[in-house]
Amino acid sequence: MSAAIVKLPVTTVTDGVIEEKTDALAIEEPLEIRLEYGPTELRKVQNISVTMRTPGNDAELTAGFLFTEGIISNPAHFKQIAHSFIACADNRENVIQVSITEDITPNLLNTERNFYTTSSCGVCGKGSINAIRTVSNYSTDLPDSNKINTDVLTELPEKLRLHQKVFADTGGLHAAALFSTTGELLLVREDVGRHNALDKLIGAAINKFDMPLNDHILLLSGRASFELIQKAAMAGINIVAAVGAPSSLAVQLAAEFNITLAGFLRGRRFNIYHAPQRILITENENTY
Amino acid sequence: MSAAIVKLPVTTVTDGVIEEKTDALAIEEPLEIRLEYGPTELRKVQNISVTMRTPGNDAELTAGFLFTEGIISNPAHFKQIAHSFIACADNRENVIQVSITEDITPNLLNTERNFYTTSSCGVCGKGSINAIRTVSNYSTDLPDSNKINTDVLTELPEKLRLHQKVFADTGGLHAAALFSTTGELLLVREDVGRHNALDKLIGAAINKFDMPLNDHILLLSGRASFELIQKAAMAGINIVAAVGAPSSLAVQLAAEFNITLAGFLRGRRFNIYHAPQRILITENENTY
Repeated sequence: MSAAIVKLPVTTVTDGVIEEKTDALAIEEPLEIRLEYGPTELRKVQNISVTMRTPGNDAELTAGFLFTEGIISNPAHFKQIAHSFIACADNRENVIQVSITEDITPNLLNTERNFYTTSSCGVCGKGSINAIRTVSNYSTDLPDSNKINTDVLTELPEKLRLHQKVFADTGGLHAAALFSTTGELLLVREDVGRHNALDKLIGAAINKFDMPLNDHILLLSGRASFELIQKAAMAGINIVAAVGAPSSLAVQLAAEFNITLAGFLRGRRFNIYHAPQRILITENENTY
Repeated sequence: MSAAIVKLPVTTVTDGVIEEKTDALAIEEPLEIRLEYGPTELRKVQNISVTMRTPGNDAELTAGFLFTEGIISNPAHFKQIAHSFIACADNRENVIQVSITEDITPNLLNTERNFYTTSSCGVCGKGSINAIRTVSNYSTDLPDSNKINTDVLTELPEKLRLHQKVFADTGGLHAAALFSTTGELLLVREDVGRHNALDKLIGAAINKFDMPLNDHILLLSGRASFELIQKAAMAGINIVAAVGAPSSLAVQLAAEFNITLAGFLRGRRFNIYHAPQRILITENENTY
C-alpha cells in the first residue's frame, strides 16, 4: 500500500507572526494505465490513460475507470490487474497493467479524447448523453422501490466526515462513499481527483457487491459534474447526493437516466434537482 | 457570448419543509478543440481535445490550453481561433478551430495522454517535472525583485469574491485571477473546471500583457494541483496563491521551478510551501 499523505515543512503566517511547522498534504502522482488484450497468440499492450491520482487502491481505480468509461463492459472480463515495475528509483508504483480475457475486444474508441463526439451532431450535451446510453449496461430508470428517508440523506455528510478523519488535515482530498438505502456506510474512497475517488469506489464495489448498484446511495464530498453522474449511471446507481452544487449537464444527465440527484447537503437542508419521489420527506416536529 | 449560468427548477427541503424554487447552476458543456496546421498546400485539421467547460471565453480557453500544454510554444503563431458551426440545433458553439501559421509544427506529442511519460524512467513525478522543463519557454527562477506585502496577499481572496458576485449563487464555479504585485485585480476567469479557468486566464493574458507573467500574482479559488502549477510555470508566473490546499506534487513542482506557493489563505492567516522570500512579512501591530 502506498501512503496517501505526506508531511512537509511549511511556513505558517498568522497576522504577520511566522511559525515553522509540518503540514500534511495529499499525495498526487501520475498513474499510467496499460491494457493487455487480444487472442493468445496476438496479445497487445496499449497505453490507455495517465491520470494524476493519490496512490493507493490503484487496482480498484483501474477497474473502475475501465468499467465506468465503457472500455470493459463486464467486470468478469478482468484477468489480472497489477503494478508493472519499471526502472525508477523513486516511484515504482506508477504504472499498472490490466490483462483481460482472450475472447474480449475492449471498446478502445472510448479511450480517445473524442469519447463525447460519437453522436451524429458532433459535440453537444445531447450527444454526450446518447453516447453514454449506448455503452451503459444497466438501467437506472427502475420502479422506485428503493426510497430513502430525509434523515438518512441529511446524516450522510457527517457519517462521511467521521470516516474521513485521517485525511481531514490535508484539506485536499475528495471522497466518494457508498451507503445502503438505510444510511449504513459501506465503502469510502478518497483521491486528489474527484473522478478518481469515484472510480476507486466503483472498482471496489464491483468486487464486493452485486452489480448494478441500484439499491445504494452515492455520496460525493464536493460538486457533482457531468463526468461523475456518467460514472454513477454506468454502475446503475440511481440515488446520488452531493455536498456541493451540480452543473447544468449533471442535472440534464440525471434527468435522462431518471437518477435522483440531491445537492447542497448542509445540515438539515438540501436541494433536489431530479426524481424527488425516491426521497420520503417527513417534516421535522421541531420545525418552527 | 454564451451564458455561464442557467436557472433550473429545484425542490428545496429544509427540516422537512418543501419549497419549489429556481436555482442558478453553472453551465457545463463539452468543447472540442480542433487544430488546423501545416504548409499552405497541405493544411491538416486534427481533433486535439474535448474538455467539459463553462461556455464563454472559448477562444481564450483554447489559446491558453494550447500554450500551457506546450502544443504551441509562441502565441504569435496563432492566426485565427473561431467557433466552427456544425449541424446541431441546440449547441452551436461546442467546436472551436484554431489555425496556426504555415511555418510552425505544433508539438502534437503533447496532445497524447502520455504527456507525462516522456522521461526515460516512465511515469513518475520527476519525469513529469522534467517534461515540463523541456517545453517551458520561460524561467520562473528570477531575481526576487517582485516582492509582495503580506497585506496584499491576505486581501486577494476578498477582492476575488467581490468580483465573483454574479456566480456566487451557483456555488459551482472555480476561478483563477491575475493580480499586480501591489494587489490590483487585473483579470478573472471562471469555469466548472479549475484547469479551464486557468487556461482562460492565461489565454486572455497572452493578448493583454507582456509575456512572461513574472510580475504578477496568480490566485486560485480552490486547491492547487500539479496541473495548475504546471500551467503557471508555462506562463512564467512565479507567485501562486491558493485559497485551498496544494497537493504534494504541486509543492514539488513549485520547488523545482522556484515558484512562491502560498496556500490556505483564510483571513489574515496563510501557509507558504515554497520560496517565502518573495513575501515581505510585516507583523500586524494589533497582534495580541
